[in-house]
Amino acid sequence: MSTEIAIAEKQRISLNQLKTKCVNLFIFGHGNVGGNLLDQVLEGLEVIAERKRIQLRIVAIVNSRKAIISAEGIRGDWRKRLETNGTNWDIGQIIDFARSHTLNNCIAVDNTASRQFVDNYSALIAGGFHLVSSNKIGNTLELGFYKQLRQLLENHDREYLYETNVGAGLPLIDTIKLLHLSGENITRIRGIFSGSLSYIFNTFSEEEKSFSTIVRSAVTNGLTEPDPREDLCGNDVGRKLLILARELDLHNELEDVQIENLVPDFLRNVDASVFLDRLTELDPIFSEKKKNLKEGEVLRYVADLRGDLSVHDKAVLEVKLKSVSAEDALAQVSGSDSVFQIYTENYGSNPIVIKGAGAGGAVTARGVLGDILRLSEKLH
Amino acid sequence: MSTEIAIAEKQRISLNQLKTKCVNLFIFGHGNVGGNLLDQVLEGLEVIAERKRIQLRIVAIVNSRKAIISAEGIRGDWRKRLETNGTNWDIGQIIDFARSHTLNNCIAVDNTASRQFVDNYSALIAGGFHLVSSNKIGNTLELGFYKQLRQLLENHDREYLYETNVGAGLPLIDTIKLLHLSGENITRIRGIFSGSLSYIFNTFSEEEKSFSTIVRSAVTNGLTEPDPREDLCGNDVGRKLLILARELDLHNELEDVQIENLVPDFLRNVDASVFLDRLTELDPIFSEKKKNLKEGEVLRYVADLRGDLSVHDKAVLEVKLKSVSAEDALAQVSGSDSVFQIYTENYGSNPIVIKGAGAGGAVTARGVLGDILRLSEKLH
Repeated sequence: MSTEIAIAEKQRISLNQLKTKCVNLFIFGHGNVGGNLLDQVLEGLEVIAERKRIQLRIVAIVNSRKAIISAEGIRGDWRKRLETNGTNWDIGQIIDFARSHTLNNCIAVDNTASRQFVDNYSALIAGGFHLVSSNKIGNTLELGFYKQLRQLLENHDREYLYETNVGAGLPLIDTIKLLHLSGENITRIRGIFSGSLSYIFNTFSEEEKSFSTIVRSAVTNGLTEPDPREDLCGNDVGRKLLILARELDLHNELEDVQIENLVPDFLRNVDASVFLDRLTELDPIFSEKKKNLKEGEVLRYVADLRGDLSVHDKAVLEVKLKSVSAEDALAQVSGSDSVFQIYTENYGSNPIVIKGAGAGGAVTARGVLGDILRLSEKLH
Repeated sequence: MSTEIAIAEKQRISLNQLKTKCVNLFIFGHGNVGGNLLDQVLEGLEVIAERKRIQLRIVAIVNSRKAIISAEGIRGDWRKRLETNGTNWDIGQIIDFARSHTLNNCIAVDNTASRQFVDNYSALIAGGFHLVSSNKIGNTLELGFYKQLRQLLENHDREYLYETNVGAGLPLIDTIKLLHLSGENITRIRGIFSGSLSYIFNTFSEEEKSFSTIVRSAVTNGLTEPDPREDLCGNDVGRKLLILARELDLHNELEDVQIENLVPDFLRNVDASVFLDRLTELDPIFSEKKKNLKEGEVLRYVADLRGDLSVHDKAVLEVKLKSVSAEDALAQVSGSDSVFQIYTENYGSNPIVIKGAGAGGAVTARGVLGDILRLSEKLH
């Protein structure tokens, strides 16, 4: 660059520094993910403003009972303010608030795990909101709803990002979306989608502890839901697999996913506390499976999407406990890591592998913040 | 969604279908990457228009001697047209063409490996072009240029994407950018950055062949440059490591990278053909290294970025042949795969791992197309 251009360019800078855009965040849910997110946003405000000229503003913090809302933005001790100043709310009031304060670039961030909150999506979109969600439910209802939601987004020119639906903060959905959009034929996706089941089977392979001991320690350490059957039943993994299938424009429904429930029939309908008391009854089942492994093999709870996807509009979706060999990428995980293999035409027999913590409040919140920033970059 | 809303929404569709945006591509270089890219764009035009309402138009195809240019877009047998109808060009003419035809959303795509072409970047940006580049040189010149280029981009509100600079089509730079921007502290990046050196050392570990035999077969199969010293010297890996450091706002220069050159002194300055003839002289050196490995260890050519990054504005950047243990993610690669470990504060001791083909015309072109699409989504 010549000196003249350099000087001329410097004179433009002061003008450009005025160009910071404001993005208004409405945060629904402040549990493990939402709470971490709020802290991360508040910590990151200045860096993000400086690096990207994006001024994030937390306009609303909302839980199922109460909301605090401020057009100037909420800072400081939001937990206390929500507790003392929070008021009842309905979605219409919140949308009206944004409208009456002529707030642009509004993003509703769904960090709930609520089926009911998903019913607000269409009102929010029609009310001008973009959506970012760590809540998987919006993507796993029947296909009709899925398509209707996307049509609504298109009609209103709104965005909906949900990278953390699968693999928490790992760059999975975005990678699959971009490969698919750019015409790369994805032929198979395979992996360990659950951090809790990863931990349980990694530990069961490596250590001489009984299955029940390991499950119990996972419950104690918060690696599973309080009732570990919610993890062991495989439904959560099945939902994640469905979400990936739909990213490939496949027409699968949740019922299409063949899910192996790791909870035996006779323990499915007992109370949670009774289940935890009778946990040792799982031991003979899993000891037997471990005994039957060949040299070097390990047990892994594997999700698999495959089929002749150039011909069929549905994939075979399977979630099963499998014995995998030591060289398999799925054997090479530790702790509570998730791992995903993406097979494509051009990548051939060596898939893209993405591995790392696939659960946890801090990394999931970071992924949600990533979605917020990605979306903000598209806004004006 | 209620039926009334559903009907009202359907009526908006016809309006929205008119909203397709046109993105004008100026493709510089049509070798292995550029040629694949042109084919992929032409194949993908309709799908991309349908799925994302983005109409890609190839306005210019340019090599170091000739250009074809058409405001209506180039389709069909561009190789033949370039050969028979190509004309001399300079960058001013191309920028003027875009201006005189009032073309918006222009992207200059640099698939050259040319130092000289990088000198055109500032004219292109000032002329209203966005940049997508698989050419690493623009990011590895001195830091002053690097910063000036970004200032220019900011002043003109232009984008510059270069995901394929490191790891070809793997989602690496974008992941690091987003983690860094969202405030996640990246503490270390480590990996195998070169497909050719990955192939050479994977094969050397697994098979009983001599080092020279393996290098020769890599040359024959096009896995290295025609003169394999360009790979063996480590400079390409060093450049990639520098690019990642700069993504973290570190102030490193290329000279800061400690690079182990695998070519012994006495073979560095001989002709390429002489080097290939004397390749067996490498064998005792690498046999010795292999003999010194402990049980289970393998040789890997490792790039490593580390240091106390919260305190220093430069990282320690090291590119070296290392012995790594079997459990190390860097040992668990095959073929010519690259692998990257990203350590962050919240991911703790288990890093994010991204693995897969890190080189090759088709996958690199797909990555460039990914950048084009990502950028197109931001345009209006």
